[in-house]
Amino acid sequence: PGGGRGGAPRGPQEERIYLDHNATTPLAPEVAQALGDAMRQAWGNPSSCHPAGRKAKELISGARESLARMVGARPEDIVFMSGGTEANNMVIHTARRHFCDSQAGLGDGGGMPHFVTSSVEHDSVRLPLEQLVTESLAEATFVPVSSQSGRVEVDDVLAAIRTTTCLVSIMLANNETGVIMPVAELSQRIRALNQRRAAEGLPRILVHTDAAQMIGKGRVDVQELGVDYLTIVGHKFYGPRIGALYVRGPGTATPLHPMLFGGGQERSFRPGTENTPMIAGLGQAAELVSKSWEAYEAHMRDVRDYLEARLEASFGKQRIHFNSHFTGSKRLCNTSNFSILGPGLQGRRVLSRCKTLLASVGAACHSEKGDRPSSVLLSCGIPYDVAQNALRLSVGRDTTRADVDLVVQDLVLAVAQLDQDQAP
Amino acid sequence: PGGGRGGAPRGPQEERIYLDHNATTPLAPEVAQALGDAMRQAWGNPSSCHPAGRKAKELISGARESLARMVGARPEDIVFMSGGTEANNMVIHTARRHFCDSQAGLGDGGGMPHFVTSSVEHDSVRLPLEQLVTESLAEATFVPVSSQSGRVEVDDVLAAIRTTTCLVSIMLANNETGVIMPVAELSQRIRALNQRRAAEGLPRILVHTDAAQMIGKGRVDVQELGVDYLTIVGHKFYGPRIGALYVRGPGTATPLHPMLFGGGQERSFRPGTENTPMIAGLGQAAELVSKSWEAYEAHMRDVRDYLEARLEASFGKQRIHFNSHFTGSKRLCNTSNFSILGPGLQGRRVLSRCKTLLASVGAACHSEKGDRPSSVLLSCGIPYDVAQNALRLSVGRDTTRADVDLVVQDLVLAVAQLDQDQAP
Ligand SMILES: Cc1ncc(COP(=O)(O)O)c(C=O)c1O
Ligand SMILES: Cc1ncc(COP(=O)(O)O)c(C=O)c1O
Repeated sequence: PGGGRGGAPRGPQEERIYLDHNATTPLAPEVAQALGDAMRQAWGNPSSCHPAGRKAKELISGARESLARMVGARPEDIVFMSGGTEANNMVIHTARRHFCDSQAGLGDGGGMPHFVTSSVEHDSVRLPLEQLVTESLAEATFVPVSSQSGRVEVDDVLAAIRTTTCLVSIMLANNETGVIMPVAELSQRIRALNQRRAAEGLPRILVHTDAAQMIGKGRVDVQELGVDYLTIVGHKFYGPRIGALYVRGPGTATPLHPMLFGGGQERSFRPGTENTPMIAGLGQAAELVSKSWEAYEAHMRDVRDYLEARLEASFGKQRIHFNSHFTGSKRLCNTSNFSILGPGLQGRRVLSRCKTLLASVGAACHSEKGDRPSSVLLSCGIPYDVAQNALRLSVGRDTTRADVDLVVQDLVLAVAQLDQDQAP
Repeated sequence: PGGGRGGAPRGPQEERIYLDHNATTPLAPEVAQALGDAMRQAWGNPSSCHPAGRKAKELISGARESLARMVGARPEDIVFMSGGTEANNMVIHTARRHFCDSQAGLGDGGGMPHFVTSSVEHDSVRLPLEQLVTESLAEATFVPVSSQSGRVEVDDVLAAIRTTTCLVSIMLANNETGVIMPVAELSQRIRALNQRRAAEGLPRILVHTDAAQMIGKGRVDVQELGVDYLTIVGHKFYGPRIGALYVRGPGTATPLHPMLFGGGQERSFRPGTENTPMIAGLGQAAELVSKSWEAYEAHMRDVRDYLEARLEASFGKQRIHFNSHFTGSKRLCNTSNFSILGPGLQGRRVLSRCKTLLASVGAACHSEKGDRPSSVLLSCGIPYDVAQNALRLSVGRDTTRADVDLVVQDLVLAVAQLDQDQAP
């Protein structure tokens, strides 16, 4: 296994090539090994005093160190939890609680907490905020991305800040377009702003970034980024289906309010008997990233760029529109979002004619949404009819140029068939 | 592996016997197999339309059926989540939300929601309730267990109910004493009460039971129990470290309010990319329970009873106090909570002298608590000095009478040493 062709399920006759690594990745062999070993050897309850528990506790503490190393943090800044969705929700929950607590002394209740985020965040940021707004528990500004750069601009974020702003949450890289957001610059500007705000008695603005798509594909260092919180999602970097939250000094320098209460695990920030094997696997996945992310990045960039060159050569410059070639923006090394232009070439139709390629039209397939194009692409200013034809191909560590050749050939055939269907 | 001696870590020279199955169990070999297979073959994102995701989706739906079968529910009544802690917290969160929503129309705000629970619940029920009370968001009554029966009595629970009561949460079997609570009778009485309350316009009382310790050790059928919610914890029945919540018609017959918002998984009750391998493993663990729980129960009861007989024979009736031999109460087949009487025989001291036995003094070891005896035992009316000496031994599917002989011999030696230390 390990991805690329090997790991993907095979149809009865044909071999499939998986280019949907932004949706999820297989486990790296080393991760599967660590996970299996922990399952067999460290199944004790990490809270137990006896040796059966001690081994589990050691594995967890080793994994915490590995995660910290991966993002340039201290082990005590890492809190394990069930996944990215929980991490993102917990940051939002914390910021609201912290704001309300800090305003509790003020006479008029201090007003409603206000959140600033982008218009292209994952549902696990967008929906908890919309929920708070619906319940009249918070206000939120969804800053649109620039159609020039595909990214949210620092000045636009700063302009959205109010006196009641408690959190700015901007993803590090978008899952559909791959566009990388200016998080380091943003943090820096907010740090300066927070100093002025403190002098005026205004609440501190906390800064969060969802790094789900960036880890394992580019440099992620919490010191450089300057954020208070950073979301880590195992299954996007060949790790298991759990996650972690980086918090700069949880409970001391940076507030962290639990959503769950129970047996005291994770210093009571996230109780529940620890999922030792998954945590051990996550630690191993982090080790791989620390050691080799630059090699992964170079390889994936090479293969992705080759894919885009082959697409252009095969379909012609006129017929291919790359949906994330924005001037002035960096993008993820592994993601290509493009549309093959023409009638009847909606993304879903093209994919359903492919015999080799496994990919998607955007974020996790919301089959109920039919052919409505991705709101993220529309947000980026991609015209409706172009966005309808969008395909998101995301290569992985094991994807080869030979895979790309097969995939492009597959697409050419699928499109030829659909063109024929379309012919009068 | 598989528990008993085989699975437990070994010290440099001696072989250890794990009798702490209420803390956690190893994975059954069939579960490890299912988990490993899913890891290799179904790593796709279950939300993806392509075949890589479809396999994962099928596994999840099969596991949902297995869990439903295990507890006599319908598949749509099962919601997967990260564990028992989350399940318990979610029930409490839901009941509060539901009460507040149902009272929203009333002029004076309708009062504060009130919870009824027992004094011996797991921290993942006790602490979220205490938190709500601290925040003045709810009231809670912790009904003491009877010192005659060791269980919470139905009449005492009913007497605690107020007009504002929104939830009664009583565990099915206690993790420390093994005492089984009268949940079926309680549900029946509350159902009748709810009919009268409906006629008076009072809010419905929801009924929850935490079945963490009962599954795999005794009959668990949601129809017989008559509860609205039931907590399922994989790692207590040789399954993985995730859990599920049974809800009688979630969102229709019975309210269920999400705590997290995100990508829509688990019908939006519990979003986040599904942990496919763990879910597949949980399904397999449930299959084993459905098929064999009666055999497991008979075996564990035999071994546990043998253990208690051997303890009595070895230490003498006068020197052993069984902390959960209550008249009129049933108890878990696998749990023995006892104290070896005498000075200097605190549970922790005895265990630390044991060379073979791995066990605990109560729930997960809270090492910071020193020799303070278990609050659950004190709650049951066990005298302080007896409770200080308590040991909780919990046998498993693979524990044998031969294991028991070794363990009792180990205890006899440990106690003899401690007696000698004590001698002037
Ligand atoms: C940008 C981003 N954030 C968060 C998540 C949520 O992760 P999960 O569904 O594993 O909780 C994902 C992936 O699904 C993602 O792409
Ligand atoms: C009775 C009971 N309920 C709930 C739990 C919580 O399960 P977890 O820690 O896996 O979330 C446990 C075990 O720890 C338990 O014994």
